[in-house]
Amino acid sequence: MNKKPYFPKVAIIGVGLIGGSLAIALKEKKLCGSIVGVGRGLENLRAAKRLGLIDSFTRDAGKGVADADLVVVAVPVAGMAKVIKQAAAHLKKGCIVTDAGSVKGPVVKEAGRVMPEGVFFVGGHPIAGTENSGAMAAFPGLFKGRKCILTPDKNTDKNALRKVAAMWRTAGSEVVLMSAARHDRVLAAVSHLPHMIAYTLVNTVSDMDVKGGGIAKYSAGGFRDFTRIASSSPEMWRDICAANRDALIAAMERFGKRLKRLRDMIDTGDLSAVERDFSRAKRVRDRLKR
Amino acid sequence: MNKKPYFPKVAIIGVGLIGGSLAIALKEKKLCGSIVGVGRGLENLRAAKRLGLIDSFTRDAGKGVADADLVVVAVPVAGMAKVIKQAAAHLKKGCIVTDAGSVKGPVVKEAGRVMPEGVFFVGGHPIAGTENSGAMAAFPGLFKGRKCILTPDKNTDKNALRKVAAMWRTAGSEVVLMSAARHDRVLAAVSHLPHMIAYTLVNTVSDMDVKGGGIAKYSAGGFRDFTRIASSSPEMWRDICAANRDALIAAMERFGKRLKRLRDMIDTGDLSAVERDFSRAKRVRDRLKR
Repeated sequence: MNKKPYFPKVAIIGVGLIGGSLAIALKEKKLCGSIVGVGRGLENLRAAKRLGLIDSFTRDAGKGVADADLVVVAVPVAGMAKVIKQAAAHLKKGCIVTDAGSVKGPVVKEAGRVMPEGVFFVGGHPIAGTENSGAMAAFPGLFKGRKCILTPDKNTDKNALRKVAAMWRTAGSEVVLMSAARHDRVLAAVSHLPHMIAYTLVNTVSDMDVKGGGIAKYSAGGFRDFTRIASSSPEMWRDICAANRDALIAAMERFGKRLKRLRDMIDTGDLSAVERDFSRAKRVRDRLKR
Repeated sequence: MNKKPYFPKVAIIGVGLIGGSLAIALKEKKLCGSIVGVGRGLENLRAAKRLGLIDSFTRDAGKGVADADLVVVAVPVAGMAKVIKQAAAHLKKGCIVTDAGSVKGPVVKEAGRVMPEGVFFVGGHPIAGTENSGAMAAFPGLFKGRKCILTPDKNTDKNALRKVAAMWRTAGSEVVLMSAARHDRVLAAVSHLPHMIAYTLVNTVSDMDVKGGGIAKYSAGGFRDFTRIASSSPEMWRDICAANRDALIAAMERFGKRLKRLRDMIDTGDLSAVERDFSRAKRVRDRLKR
């Protein structure tokens, strides 16, 4: 089950934090022969080569994937479908394609549409990241102890799934399988919704800041921790909103209803209900501690 | 202005994290003669004495404050008004009373009502805290570099205000003055609202967790940081909700409207408005970084 796979030729499209870190892990764990990096920014590709993450690079996705045994697409969510389509026509028979996108429904759908016969697609999402990006930020321990969700469906080749799962396990991840739809609902709740909340909270506090007195400066450490994710890339999160619209809106509505209910409990002075609500949340949250 | 004050006899009501840490700071900075601790729990009072935070203790607030030059009330928000009322009748002329409560409107109002002639009340809120509580958790550096908000009004004695401000500055705080009403609006936004959101987010994620599969475990570090404050004391936060009801509800409604607006932008696909919203939040949040 956990036998180490071996991919003589690997193409990584998008040699950023995720793609670059996977490249180092593949090399360190001897899971591959050579790695070609595909990307748009020459400077980043040169840095990746200099750092030894990749052996060669090209800006032509078709050329890059031409004789690859494994293609990993690790570009931002908005570019994913286009890149997969570009690469599809150039893949050799038996090639395994996987991705690292944080929304799975649209990618899995597009891959099902464009992958040629005899090429095997496995949707994936390593849940890992730091505040830094680019090949320079890559490090092999990024995936250690983190979950990696794979989203096979009835058309997914079992052998390809096994190899991709083994690759991520060897890189240090705990692999979990679920449907693309469930992945998108779960991530909407635990990741996309919190980002919407953090952005909105900072904007709310900023609205209240009538004369620019900087009321946020009166916050203790809690506010800083709480809103740290509001420093995330606006472009990336705009694209995630678009890609996971339905699940995200459903999560925002659930949250909005619960917040309204809490507001009403406070308004009517139903303090025992307020305390029950807080206690339930505390129990759940305390279980997350290590 | 910043001349060190000196209080021959100090009474601290509530020798927990805040009261205990202030006690150590008063002693280290030689701002006082002796300190009597007043509290309900004997075990905590004994620990405070053993640790040298206080010189003696009593469970009788009237006795504890009888000949004090400075009384600091550092009990939880819900008990504040009652304790101030109990102590009021026993204060000697010229005594300065201040508090450390995280909601100021009700305390300042009650103090105005019950303080006898010739006794000087100054409302205060050192914005500091850790996840630990009790005298055992106290340390003198707690206030270092943190803000302490004092909430004088037209009845506040200037000399008493100056002494209390100098005390907090000597303990390491940056003292800021504002009205009790503004304090409560600001804290509703930067502290109380985030707690409501964190509790509600954890409950929302937990609701979605149909079969108890623990979907929160799929979150990366962001969710952990984001919901850390949902581990705070449900009783304490229930009481803060009650004490700061109006300002908190107003903040929750502002936030709810903004979140609804963001939801609508995502729903209608107005992605440039979404990005503008995120960019604005990022600019504000980035300024908080050090």
